[in-house]
Amino acid sequence: MSDATTSPDLDALRAANPEHWRRAAAIRTLTLDAVAAANSGHSGMPMGMADVATVLFEKHLKFDASRPDWPDRDRFVLSAGHGSMLLYSLLYLTGYPEMTLEQIRNFRQLGAITAGHPEYGHAPGIETTTGPLGQGIATAVGMAIAEEIQRARFGRKIVDHHTWVIAGDGCLMEGVSHEAIALAGKLELSHLIVLWDDNGITIDGKVSIADVTDQKQRFKAAGWDVLEVDGHDPQAIDAALTDAKKGKKPTMVACKTHIAIGSSAQDTSKGHGALTDPELISATKRAYGWEHAPFEIPEDLKAEWEAIGARGAEARAEWEVRFAELGRGKKDHFERALRREAPKKLSATIKALKRQLAESQPKVATRKSSEMVLEVVNPIMPETVGGSADLTGSNNTLTEDLGVFGPENRDGRYIYYGIREHGMAAALNGLALHGGVRPYGGTFFAFTDYARPAMRLAALMGIPSTFVMTHDSIGLGEDGPTHQPVEHLAICRATPNTNVFRPCDTAETAEAWELALTATETPSVLVLSRQSMPTQRKEFSNKNLVAQGAYVLADADGKRMAILMATGSEVDVAMKARDLLQQDGIGTRVVSMPSWELFEAQDEKYRKKVLPAGPVRVAVEAGARMGWDRWLFGERGKRDKGAFVGMEGYGASAPAEELFAHFGITPEAVAKAVRDLI
Amino acid sequence: MSDATTSPDLDALRAANPEHWRRAAAIRTLTLDAVAAANSGHSGMPMGMADVATVLFEKHLKFDASRPDWPDRDRFVLSAGHGSMLLYSLLYLTGYPEMTLEQIRNFRQLGAITAGHPEYGHAPGIETTTGPLGQGIATAVGMAIAEEIQRARFGRKIVDHHTWVIAGDGCLMEGVSHEAIALAGKLELSHLIVLWDDNGITIDGKVSIADVTDQKQRFKAAGWDVLEVDGHDPQAIDAALTDAKKGKKPTMVACKTHIAIGSSAQDTSKGHGALTDPELISATKRAYGWEHAPFEIPEDLKAEWEAIGARGAEARAEWEVRFAELGRGKKDHFERALRREAPKKLSATIKALKRQLAESQPKVATRKSSEMVLEVVNPIMPETVGGSADLTGSNNTLTEDLGVFGPENRDGRYIYYGIREHGMAAALNGLALHGGVRPYGGTFFAFTDYARPAMRLAALMGIPSTFVMTHDSIGLGEDGPTHQPVEHLAICRATPNTNVFRPCDTAETAEAWELALTATETPSVLVLSRQSMPTQRKEFSNKNLVAQGAYVLADADGKRMAILMATGSEVDVAMKARDLLQQDGIGTRVVSMPSWELFEAQDEKYRKKVLPAGPVRVAVEAGARMGWDRWLFGERGKRDKGAFVGMEGYGASAPAEELFAHFGITPEAVAKAVRDLI
Repeated sequence: MSDATTSPDLDALRAANPEHWRRAAAIRTLTLDAVAAANSGHSGMPMGMADVATVLFEKHLKFDASRPDWPDRDRFVLSAGHGSMLLYSLLYLTGYPEMTLEQIRNFRQLGAITAGHPEYGHAPGIETTTGPLGQGIATAVGMAIAEEIQRARFGRKIVDHHTWVIAGDGCLMEGVSHEAIALAGKLELSHLIVLWDDNGITIDGKVSIADVTDQKQRFKAAGWDVLEVDGHDPQAIDAALTDAKKGKKPTMVACKTHIAIGSSAQDTSKGHGALTDPELISATKRAYGWEHAPFEIPEDLKAEWEAIGARGAEARAEWEVRFAELGRGKKDHFERALRREAPKKLSATIKALKRQLAESQPKVATRKSSEMVLEVVNPIMPETVGGSADLTGSNNTLTEDLGVFGPENRDGRYIYYGIREHGMAAALNGLALHGGVRPYGGTFFAFTDYARPAMRLAALMGIPSTFVMTHDSIGLGEDGPTHQPVEHLAICRATPNTNVFRPCDTAETAEAWELALTATETPSVLVLSRQSMPTQRKEFSNKNLVAQGAYVLADADGKRMAILMATGSEVDVAMKARDLLQQDGIGTRVVSMPSWELFEAQDEKYRKKVLPAGPVRVAVEAGARMGWDRWLFGERGKRDKGAFVGMEGYGASAPAEELFAHFGITPEAVAKAVRDLI
Repeated sequence: MSDATTSPDLDALRAANPEHWRRAAAIRTLTLDAVAAANSGHSGMPMGMADVATVLFEKHLKFDASRPDWPDRDRFVLSAGHGSMLLYSLLYLTGYPEMTLEQIRNFRQLGAITAGHPEYGHAPGIETTTGPLGQGIATAVGMAIAEEIQRARFGRKIVDHHTWVIAGDGCLMEGVSHEAIALAGKLELSHLIVLWDDNGITIDGKVSIADVTDQKQRFKAAGWDVLEVDGHDPQAIDAALTDAKKGKKPTMVACKTHIAIGSSAQDTSKGHGALTDPELISATKRAYGWEHAPFEIPEDLKAEWEAIGARGAEARAEWEVRFAELGRGKKDHFERALRREAPKKLSATIKALKRQLAESQPKVATRKSSEMVLEVVNPIMPETVGGSADLTGSNNTLTEDLGVFGPENRDGRYIYYGIREHGMAAALNGLALHGGVRPYGGTFFAFTDYARPAMRLAALMGIPSTFVMTHDSIGLGEDGPTHQPVEHLAICRATPNTNVFRPCDTAETAEAWELALTATETPSVLVLSRQSMPTQRKEFSNKNLVAQGAYVLADADGKRMAILMATGSEVDVAMKARDLLQQDGIGTRVVSMPSWELFEAQDEKYRKKVLPAGPVRVAVEAGARMGWDRWLFGERGKRDKGAFVGMEGYGASAPAEELFAHFGITPEAVAKAVRDLI
């Protein structure tokens, strides 16, 4: 942490490197102008880091602005996402498609691609969504892992790039940064370089009011190389970035900078925020020696920047040649995986497994079912990269053929993430964003809580990370309420663009995996049991029934008087309640609802077919009621009778069967709920 | 991290310290027996850390087993909560009330207080719930802060104790540990001592497969003193703990141990789990020189342990005398705050504010309303301890009189938590658990995601932490979708034992704060707007209307044809929609629903009075629909018409008013939804 004391001499800096200074000033003044126009945003960080970013783009970053989708480009991650104008300025100046001056002028306005924080998908060159602090650096770890795996597989001629991160003090205070840097240190991700904007300022004031961490010592303790540099000296920056690329470990470069440099708000928390005062802005521009109108970049300067943007064109063209020379098989794999397209035989593989299941009818936990699926999928889908946050044997995420990824084994496809649920989830996102690999990672479902910030980002970005969440209810038993999810299904279901699957047996698990592995713009959460469950789907179905979200598992014998809705382990409870009710002559349909989101996406006709008006409805799920009213009452009709059998509070520590009895999640309770309604 | 290579010589250890060995063996064998009886649990950690724990309890921990509620006791936190049998053994052996041998025998069984992981409230001596890794160490930071504050206020004679933590590798890998130790380092919490169980083993194998962190260097980088000790050498442990208490900084003691010591599973990940094989158990007991039946503790040994339990009785009695000599005012404050009881004048203070508001009718953001409340509450409630995760000016959490807590100012009541939402939330829990203080802390509502694991624990433990969550919807505007909560109301509402308040104006905010400040067993989440809202409650109400959860804000003129339900900033939308509908002759009631939980807790009669059957219902909230069907359709009746106006996906970056229009959360849209239903 730096408590900047002496103010830099801008005139001297400018005189020493006039061309560099002008280029960096373009970033600084575009930032000032855009923030002023928006009347909101963060001016100080782009102003402070403009020198570092200019040197990075001018001399080190491997990119071709005209082809932002070049697979072997360096990845640039702005972890300090509030400084978004730094990124937008660079993309505009170097000539990325779509990032026009009009967009810069519309910074933070409705419909503009220049959102308050960088949003993945808004424009080429935005490699990941950042803003929630620490996410960028943790996501970058996944990108760097993907690069290592791809390099091992396709060779240095095809894959050989770096992942660069600009991180602020906030990123480094967030806990997830600890998980990220420790993982990167262990994995010796030498192509990962973090540029720390060491400006000593946060929103509440000096960093020192809340932190005395020696960041350099901290990174060293985590197995990183550490360099230090004056963040306003382009030669020194250039030398440091050159060194950083040479190391055998990930490198952190501490860049000592002045936030909001050259303004009256320099080195203050005011400088962190939106500088909108016209006087301040014009005085700052004068201090930069900048004499142009707002948003005006002189043509020759723009041309200089565009030349920087074209700097990688040749390398990119050479890469195209090398790629064309790659063997057909490797090329197809490379391109197919980049398109997030599953291999053609996935469908047949899943069907073959289902056919076999209809015969063997295993009684296993769905976490085991998941392993059975992975055992047939991983061998035919070389792009999968698995892992677990220190629960490999519990999450059943490791299959034999994967091999463990590490410093000595770069083509391993399994990662021991350590006890780092959050870091793992962010790394999964980075793997997915880098592309060419399809990541999944496991932990206990209750620890969704730890992984949440990254799971939300996966959904917001629209990327197909797969979260394998086992031990999904009180059914985990003795570990007790801290480990027993109750509200977590509601949490995942409430999250937009997230497919939540809670399969009831191996066939549903296989179908859920098929959907997860073919998803292109939606993350999947597989919610799996610790405890064994019987096979419910006794007949082979060629169709993927889970794709419809819900379906009739068993219809009523006789007049349909009740509909039971259930997911996962409670489908068996519902089936047994159906037996009890049918014995009493109460015709009962059981609807398995492994995915609410996909059911919601069906047309009304199908939904009404599955859940017709008339019969009473009882939902059973070993979780919170939140959301079930939608299916009990929410579709318009004459029905007014429904009930929920599930959890009202937290679980307890005891053997699983006793807990289901204790909390009244039993066939008898479900049958009684039906009788009470009829 | 340690990769233990040489196996310890148990006979030599035993010969060197026979009495110590026997005491520690009691912990080890109780653990083996209880885990075997339960057929689940974690044997290895209590076995490995028994020596350290024995020395801690025998020579250092300030406690009186007969009076676990002694306010000046040391706090002992088992952050590695899976090793719960370590704690239960100690509580049983030293003679804590309630922790009987019967409870030990019933480890992990339904109704036993000996849950799989330590559960706060189950038994005296369990200072906090642990199990989700890292929570214990982060909670302990809050306890240590509380001790410092109380010591400054009441003097060393009344408050002078330590907080001891046993943390495992898992705790130290979790990101929250980084936030915790950095905060503790900055605050120089010298009474906080962490005993790291450095056994080199996790569930997936050796720590080294996932981590190469130099933990000692890491803690030093965070401003801690670091000691290292052989965790099986009682003299060395004693010396280290003695040293640890002398430092001016928090201290981490790296205790090199052998997990599952003396068993054939020693130093392996198998040893981490449940050792239940009878052969292994009897061989291990033989290796310990232990010749007693399962669960049998020889009387003389039990007596030795009980003498340890009584070791602090004298000090406790002397403390009682000193406490009795304390002035009346201080004594009352000390005891009242410990009882979690608000001062009597709180109610009058809130009423006076409400009376004033009915006159001034401010148009402010509810975050500002919250500040207005804190400005009158903090001066009369000296036990409040505020803070923010680097968003002080945005959360409006700091009032003038508080003073900032820090190494130089121990009686400050405001904490700059830094950019550490998770660490802050856990610290709030620790403050509440320690007692004598009433903590609140602020961040943006979207960052509930970061704070979740600790927020859930607050709810599970039943402690009154208050989370001040501002910027509660798309109404925050330009910062965009990463910062705009959508699903977070559903997340908090789905969490059992959590009171979620989303007030619509300053009067409701004052009432919500009154409920938060008088809560004893429930955490509160205050969900507050960034943007201004007009006063809705124009008349002074003596009653706390928020306490009912929902109430009629404006009734229909003429025949009641529609009911609009809303919370927070959308109450104004509903009121304006009501104007539109009334102009059309559609009698419309507006129900403000600041707290679903409290409304749910009302009797059915009241609920039906507020939400009578008959009129169509439209809910409006700038968040996800999840859960609203409960109020639209969930109460039985003949109604079948309802609609929701809110968010269907993520927000966007733009000025707030434009976003409300863009996403169709407007009076016009609400009025249309009503007309469509009628």
